[in-house]
Amino acid sequence: MKKEMIVAGIMSGTSGDGINLAFVKLRGKPKVDKTSARKSTLPFELLGHAEFPYPQKVRAAVLQAMNAQSASVADLARLNFLLGELYSDAALAAQSSFNVKADLIGCHGQTLYHQGEPQTFLGRKIATTWQTGEAAIIAARTGVPVVSDFRPADMAAGGKGAPLVPFLDYVLFRDARVGRIIQNIGGIANLTAIPAHAAADHVIAFDTGPGNMVIDAVTGKLFGRPYDRNGRIAATGQVLAEPLRAALKHKFFRKAPPKTAGREEFGREFVAEFMKLCGRCGKQDAVATATALTAHSIADAVRRHVFCNVVLAPKTTAYQEMVLAGGGAKNATLVSALAAELHPLGLRLRLSDDFGLPSQAKEAVAFALLAYETWHRRPSNVPSATGAKRPAVLGKISYP
Amino acid sequence: MKKEMIVAGIMSGTSGDGINLAFVKLRGKPKVDKTSARKSTLPFELLGHAEFPYPQKVRAAVLQAMNAQSASVADLARLNFLLGELYSDAALAAQSSFNVKADLIGCHGQTLYHQGEPQTFLGRKIATTWQTGEAAIIAARTGVPVVSDFRPADMAAGGKGAPLVPFLDYVLFRDARVGRIIQNIGGIANLTAIPAHAAADHVIAFDTGPGNMVIDAVTGKLFGRPYDRNGRIAATGQVLAEPLRAALKHKFFRKAPPKTAGREEFGREFVAEFMKLCGRCGKQDAVATATALTAHSIADAVRRHVFCNVVLAPKTTAYQEMVLAGGGAKNATLVSALAAELHPLGLRLRLSDDFGLPSQAKEAVAFALLAYETWHRRPSNVPSATGAKRPAVLGKISYP
Repeated sequence: MKKEMIVAGIMSGTSGDGINLAFVKLRGKPKVDKTSARKSTLPFELLGHAEFPYPQKVRAAVLQAMNAQSASVADLARLNFLLGELYSDAALAAQSSFNVKADLIGCHGQTLYHQGEPQTFLGRKIATTWQTGEAAIIAARTGVPVVSDFRPADMAAGGKGAPLVPFLDYVLFRDARVGRIIQNIGGIANLTAIPAHAAADHVIAFDTGPGNMVIDAVTGKLFGRPYDRNGRIAATGQVLAEPLRAALKHKFFRKAPPKTAGREEFGREFVAEFMKLCGRCGKQDAVATATALTAHSIADAVRRHVFCNVVLAPKTTAYQEMVLAGGGAKNATLVSALAAELHPLGLRLRLSDDFGLPSQAKEAVAFALLAYETWHRRPSNVPSATGAKRPAVLGKISYP
Repeated sequence: MKKEMIVAGIMSGTSGDGINLAFVKLRGKPKVDKTSARKSTLPFELLGHAEFPYPQKVRAAVLQAMNAQSASVADLARLNFLLGELYSDAALAAQSSFNVKADLIGCHGQTLYHQGEPQTFLGRKIATTWQTGEAAIIAARTGVPVVSDFRPADMAAGGKGAPLVPFLDYVLFRDARVGRIIQNIGGIANLTAIPAHAAADHVIAFDTGPGNMVIDAVTGKLFGRPYDRNGRIAATGQVLAEPLRAALKHKFFRKAPPKTAGREEFGREFVAEFMKLCGRCGKQDAVATATALTAHSIADAVRRHVFCNVVLAPKTTAYQEMVLAGGGAKNATLVSALAAELHPLGLRLRLSDDFGLPSQAKEAVAFALLAYETWHRRPSNVPSATGAKRPAVLGKISYP
C-alpha cells in the first residue's frame, strides 16, 4: 500500500446532466477523533476537476428512469452498464488531460431512487436507495479498484443514507478555534455546522430550505430566463415584507433536524402559492423577495437549529464563519442579503474557493475522500448528520 | 487473516422460489495452475446446507420483476433492500441451527435480468446482468464482510457472465489421472468437462440442451403430474425412433460452445412440435422418448463438442467419468439410458453426492468458494467457459 494515493471521485447529480470528476492526492489518515482535534490542514491536494455532460439520449433515459412508475427491467439493467462505460470514458479522458493516473476511484453513481424513511413493503419496514453505474466496468476499463454504492451501508446502520458530504466538510473545515457553518446553496440549500474543536459527533447537517429553486422558478415565470444571473434582477427590486413573512411560516422551517427538502416542499406548488402572495407587485420585487426568502431561511435555520442546538463541544459558545459553496454563492444580491442577516449573529462570510475547493468540484472530491476511507476500512458516514446508529464503512469494492 | 475460513454461500435461482444456503470450511489456496495439478482433494468441508422459501408475496414480486416490461423503480429499489433483509435472516437462522459462525459471506442474489450478448442500447453495444439483494444489509446484520454481484466483472472482461459454477467443478473434480465431465441436469442440462491434469483454461462448459424441461412438460400434458417421479412412467414406454431423430436435429445441438439454452429453445413451442411428432403414440411412449432425448443429446454433446474439442491437456486422450448432479440424477430411467449411451464412450457414471457434495447444495457452495477467492483477490471466472478474454476477480466487497 502506497502512503500517498491519487483518488478520482465521480459524481452525477439529481439534475441528471452528466458526470463530475475530481482527482485528489491523499495521504495519511484524516483526523476525525476528538483527541487529535487541532488546527485543520487540508489533507489533500486537488489535481484536477472536469465535467462531462451526458449524451442527449442518455440524459433523457436517466431522467425518465428516476422514480419511474413503469420502467423496463432490461433497460434499467442496460443503463447500469452503459453508465459504467461513460464513467470509465470520463475517467480515462480526464486522466489523460490532467496527466495523472488514479490509484483508486470512488464513484457515487446516478441516483434513480432514494427513500430515507422506512415504509411498509411486502410486510416489512423498508428504507432504500438506488445508485446506478456499474463499478465492475469502471474497474476493468481503468485498471484500478473502484468503491461504489456508498449510501446503503449508512441505511443498513439505521441512517437516511444522506447527506454524506458532511464528512468532507468536517475533514476540511474543522478548526480548533474557529466554528464554521458550511452552507451549500444548490437548488435546495443545506448546511454542515462544525463547532470549534469538534469531534465528528458534534457535527450537525441538514437542509435549510430553498436555495436557488424558488428564485429560479420565479425568474423563469416572470422573465423567461433560467436564473437570475449574479442576482441582477433581485438587486433592482424591493423585498415585500408580507409575502416573505408568510412564506417563512412553511412548517419545514420549524421542523427539527435531521431533515431534507426537495421539490415536494419547494417545487411547483410552493412557487404558485408564493406568486399569489406577491400579488400584483413588480416583477423585480417578486425575484427580490424570493432571494430574501433564501437568505432569511438560512439565517433562521442557523438561529433555530444550530445556535440553539445543545450538542456543542465544551468551551465552545459560537460559530465565527459561514463558508459558502454552490451556485448560489455567485448570486451577489443573495450573498449580500445573507451577509446582512449573518452579521448580527457574529458570522463572517467566506467562500469555499478560498479554501482551495472550487464549489463545483466539492461533491466529486467528497466521494474521492469517502472511497479513500473505505479502501482503508474506516467508517465515513457522519451519524449525527444521517441519523445512523453507528459509524459505517461506506460502499462496495470492485477489483480490476 | 485466519488461515481457515468458514464461508457461507447464498443462492437464489431463476425459479424464484427462495434461498439456498451452504456453510463451508475453506483453507489454503485452490490449486488452479497447471504445474500444481495433481490428484485433487476436496479443499473444503461442507458444514451445513439449508433452504428457505420466500414468503408468498415476495415470490410473486420476484417473479413479476424478472424481465418486467413495466416495473416501478421505487419497488425495485425496495425489493433490493427487502431481499437483503431476507438473506440476512436466512444466514442468521442457519448459523444458529448449524451452530456455526461465518467469517465471510458470498451472496449471488436474485437475477432479475441477464443478457450475455451485447446489443445496441442508446448508441452503444451493451451486454448486462442484474442480481438484486442488498449486500450492505447482509454485512450489517451478520457482522461479516459480504461478496456480492459476481457476474458483472466477468462481463466487463468480455465474458457472458455465466456459467460461474465451472470454477467449483474444476477445483472439486479435477484429477491428475481421471478426466471428468460434470453433468448437471436441471430444467436445462449443462456440463463442465475437465480433462485429466487440466489447467483451468482446458475446461469446457456449456449447456447440452434439455434436462428435465421437456420430460416435465410432456408428463404434465399427458399425466397432469409435475414430473416423472424416478422415471417410472418412462420405464413403461417405448422410445420412438422417428420423433427422437427429428428432435435431435434441432440446430442448438450442432452449435459450437460456449452456448446457453433456455425456454426460448426448449419451452412451449418445442414441446408442442415434439408432441406432434409423437402423434398418436402411447402416452408412456412420449415420456420415454422425451427422456431418451435428454440422454441422447447429452451423449451427442460429449461426442461432438467435448471429445472432438482440440483443447486437451498433453498426453490426455479421453475422459473416464461423468459425474451427475441436479434433479435429473434422480430419474432412474434417464440415468440408465445415459449409462447405456456413455458406456461405448468409455465413461463411467458417478454421482456428485459420492464426492461429498449434495446436488442441491452445489450452487450455494460455488458462491462460497467464489467469495473466498475474491476475498483473497484471486480471479475465479473460467474464461474458457464464459468466453471472457481474461481472468477476473469476481464481485464486490461490502464491509460490516
